[in-house]
Amino acid sequence: MTKQRMRVIPLGGAGEVGRNMWVFEYGDDILVLDCGVMFPEAEMLGVDLVLPDIGYLRDNMSKVKAIILSHGHEDHVGALPYVLPDIGFPPVYATKLTIGIATNKLKEHRLLDRTKFVEFSAGDALKIGNLTVETFQVAHSIPDTVGLAINSPAGIAVYLTDWKFDHTPVDRKPTDIAAITALAQRNPVVLITDCVRVEASGFTPSEKVVGDSFDTIFATALGRIIIATFASNISRVQQAIDSAEAYGRKVMLAGRSMENNSRIAQELGYLKVKPGTLVRPNEAAQLPDDQLAVVCTGSQGEPMAALARMANREFTNLKVKQGDTVVLSATPIPGNEVSVSRVINNLFRIGADVIYGNEARVHVSGHAAQEELKMLLAMLRPQHVIPFHGDFRHMMLYRKLAIGMHMHYTPENVFVVDNGAVMEFGHNYGKIVEQIPVNYIYVDGTTVGDVSQIVVRDRQLLSRDGVLMVVVTIDRHTGELAGGPEVLTRGFVHMRESEELIESTKQVVVRLLQNNTSRAEVDAAFFIRKIKDAVGEHLFTQTRRRPVILPVITEI
Amino acid sequence: MTKQRMRVIPLGGAGEVGRNMWVFEYGDDILVLDCGVMFPEAEMLGVDLVLPDIGYLRDNMSKVKAIILSHGHEDHVGALPYVLPDIGFPPVYATKLTIGIATNKLKEHRLLDRTKFVEFSAGDALKIGNLTVETFQVAHSIPDTVGLAINSPAGIAVYLTDWKFDHTPVDRKPTDIAAITALAQRNPVVLITDCVRVEASGFTPSEKVVGDSFDTIFATALGRIIIATFASNISRVQQAIDSAEAYGRKVMLAGRSMENNSRIAQELGYLKVKPGTLVRPNEAAQLPDDQLAVVCTGSQGEPMAALARMANREFTNLKVKQGDTVVLSATPIPGNEVSVSRVINNLFRIGADVIYGNEARVHVSGHAAQEELKMLLAMLRPQHVIPFHGDFRHMMLYRKLAIGMHMHYTPENVFVVDNGAVMEFGHNYGKIVEQIPVNYIYVDGTTVGDVSQIVVRDRQLLSRDGVLMVVVTIDRHTGELAGGPEVLTRGFVHMRESEELIESTKQVVVRLLQNNTSRAEVDAAFFIRKIKDAVGEHLFTQTRRRPVILPVITEI
Repeated sequence: MTKQRMRVIPLGGAGEVGRNMWVFEYGDDILVLDCGVMFPEAEMLGVDLVLPDIGYLRDNMSKVKAIILSHGHEDHVGALPYVLPDIGFPPVYATKLTIGIATNKLKEHRLLDRTKFVEFSAGDALKIGNLTVETFQVAHSIPDTVGLAINSPAGIAVYLTDWKFDHTPVDRKPTDIAAITALAQRNPVVLITDCVRVEASGFTPSEKVVGDSFDTIFATALGRIIIATFASNISRVQQAIDSAEAYGRKVMLAGRSMENNSRIAQELGYLKVKPGTLVRPNEAAQLPDDQLAVVCTGSQGEPMAALARMANREFTNLKVKQGDTVVLSATPIPGNEVSVSRVINNLFRIGADVIYGNEARVHVSGHAAQEELKMLLAMLRPQHVIPFHGDFRHMMLYRKLAIGMHMHYTPENVFVVDNGAVMEFGHNYGKIVEQIPVNYIYVDGTTVGDVSQIVVRDRQLLSRDGVLMVVVTIDRHTGELAGGPEVLTRGFVHMRESEELIESTKQVVVRLLQNNTSRAEVDAAFFIRKIKDAVGEHLFTQTRRRPVILPVITEI
Repeated sequence: MTKQRMRVIPLGGAGEVGRNMWVFEYGDDILVLDCGVMFPEAEMLGVDLVLPDIGYLRDNMSKVKAIILSHGHEDHVGALPYVLPDIGFPPVYATKLTIGIATNKLKEHRLLDRTKFVEFSAGDALKIGNLTVETFQVAHSIPDTVGLAINSPAGIAVYLTDWKFDHTPVDRKPTDIAAITALAQRNPVVLITDCVRVEASGFTPSEKVVGDSFDTIFATALGRIIIATFASNISRVQQAIDSAEAYGRKVMLAGRSMENNSRIAQELGYLKVKPGTLVRPNEAAQLPDDQLAVVCTGSQGEPMAALARMANREFTNLKVKQGDTVVLSATPIPGNEVSVSRVINNLFRIGADVIYGNEARVHVSGHAAQEELKMLLAMLRPQHVIPFHGDFRHMMLYRKLAIGMHMHYTPENVFVVDNGAVMEFGHNYGKIVEQIPVNYIYVDGTTVGDVSQIVVRDRQLLSRDGVLMVVVTIDRHTGELAGGPEVLTRGFVHMRESEELIESTKQVVVRLLQNNTSRAEVDAAFFIRKIKDAVGEHLFTQTRRRPVILPVITEI
């Protein structure tokens, strides 16, 4: 056995879905870095939650010493309620605002009393097991974000995700360049960093740009101002409030998550609001138009969020009207472009002035662009890099970008990996040693408990490979087939062209029923499950597609 | 009765769907301007064709003197096979390439022998009825595009759509600025112009930029080069062929529409190819990688188009492999972003180098950006403007842009209208006088006859409001209900929460069957149609939603 290595494993942070979670392991110590679900905005649209696959943590539970959170966004903290109970509630290390947001989440799941938080501030060094984790300040679109430098006998791993070099951020806490350059002196072995904006040239503009745009809007708008943004974008909410206060407007918050997050941030001192600025809906309704601003959810065109409901005049507290200025302070997440366009068109039809898009400068990304990504490599000079938090194409472009710097980067030390890749590192040593199986873990809509979510998820399933129905009529006394099976499809294969497939599917069902008629009584639920499994497997083998299978059993 | 006006009516060109068709009417003469369907690319993805509503033309058929086509893109010519037979085959005026493309289309529909084309060249003046139509050259992403100036006693209407001011286009035929400025001297009454790129600041770059990028790619790529673009983008295909010839590569065309359009353009002299440049698949397979370029369809991520099939290794003639350079020479049409991303990720996974996105400069739009739109107004100075070929938001932004020029534009003379708006114009007179009802006219997938299209369309239907199944077992002898009705839904409403709705739906079916059991024999098709209608109406009344309804009748 050679010298011991540190292991790094992405469980949900690599690849096409941003449910960030990494394993850092050295000897008997495992640190879990972040604990996220896939986009909260996608969740709002009704897609299931996607969790990281924590099989590896379950198998090594005794080693797990802590979860460390980098910041409070859903894709970094949202899986806590699902993960903590499964791995015995290890202590959760985080900064104050991040703890505030996580606390709210755990309270909703009635798990707060079993959770142990350890609060730290950027700059603190954490002793956990045999490891020391240094922390440093990072600029992102939410305050209190940190980067981590994990010290092990095998060297230093730097975990720096969801960051940009913003020298004039809203909270006046820029990325700590001194800390990064100091780390460089200690020859870090590996950097784990996000690469989601690697397609963008130049530098991501400072948040300050948005504040300036807001000021211009507030200085000129004659009617109400409605600003839609991510509920988690506390800095953006701060900017809206700052402009409102500067130009003599009150602020109404709309949307449950917007109200929650803002309340937490305000209580903890991260959102600074003058007394009297925030108003409730009934007060807002009394104000002259030019004295009201609304900050709301729905920037992704989500049909159930505040903005779309205001636009459709379904929001009891406020209806968009002619003369309103609506600001979309966010970029559509890929896949949401059409729903965002629809909301914009609706708003224009109502007679609102809509301010949106890159050129309006009412939104900037929280992530580093090409020149920042290069600058970080030039500053930190890690021996190895693992780009993540992006699609496969982003990781490949990052690799190209790193190699193009003509430093020491090659395809061998810029790792483009899928979730479950077990990488071992030591000084001047880095290798993928294994690929453990990781799956998409979906949280069933029923658990989350929102009806509209289940319905929307079904639609998405239906839209993927269509639907196939199997209808059988069974004699309730004998359990024998009395009619059918009928097989019907929509959106799966063209029935007339696929007679053979339909016929073989019927045979699968007939055989299945023949093998099970000896049961004492007809158990419809049992047959339904059986038919689903058998037909699903048959169709996948034949077509590589997975339609929604709907068995219907009628008893006569 | 005052002085006679000219009438202008958009039948498919305004609003959110670009199936361009306009009516120009003066006295007893009607000219139909363009005859398009909604995006051919959307069609390829399996969405139904959307046609302009020609009810107005049918009602005034004797007045229709001609259809005049501006250029050969699907959204300007694709509806000819559906429209011509309905309005008695009026003569179709177009330039040579446009006629070539339309001819191919009409041949496929076996309508060519009944169609009368009148060919003209940019610069010609056409005498049609009592009207004179001047034509002038326009730069767009397909050669042989023209603008129209229609002279009537009520003044001049200018129809200038799908254009940009490209001073260095591929075919060296820029937009005829002399013609436009000359028209300005004659005080044109109204301009109809596209506004789809009004969100983009500055000038749309010249097509030349793309040629330069292609040259760089061809100069450096070591493996094969695969360029995906719109089949209708003849200029882009020319650029790929030019670069291939300059750098010693043969060219294989892939995708049915790519092959068709290129063949037509080549036959008519609009696509210039040296003898021996084009190769067939079997020849291509023999060539060294660095001597082959492929130009193909699939730039929108369409799963059935050449590029996606090459990426999925389902395309027998060519499979993408490590070392290939793939160029996406197109921008995703809104709604296609996710499928385009998927294809890019796949290509990267295979090991191809993928070149895409704005910053790679491998695509430029064929439409005018803000400065061009303003330049046109400054040059032509029309009394009134109708922006179209865009979403509602584009039309509103265009109005804002025009007003912002501080010329004579106001909300009253920049018309933002929906399809069916009847506008009357005369010197210094412009007014919406009526709104005629226009509908979305869908072409049923079965008519188009492409299996994969039907399947994809079903998925989209399913994804909209879900599916509801009604299962009934009927005694084949008596026609009476022997089991059920069972009602099952997915993606429509949450069943547990909607027991009442499900129950009432069952009652609808029961009543329906009771009323029809007197029929001599059980006619399943009859019941299916009856159930569809009755249940569909019931559900729409109750929920305002239209799920796909799937009745299943089992006889015992």
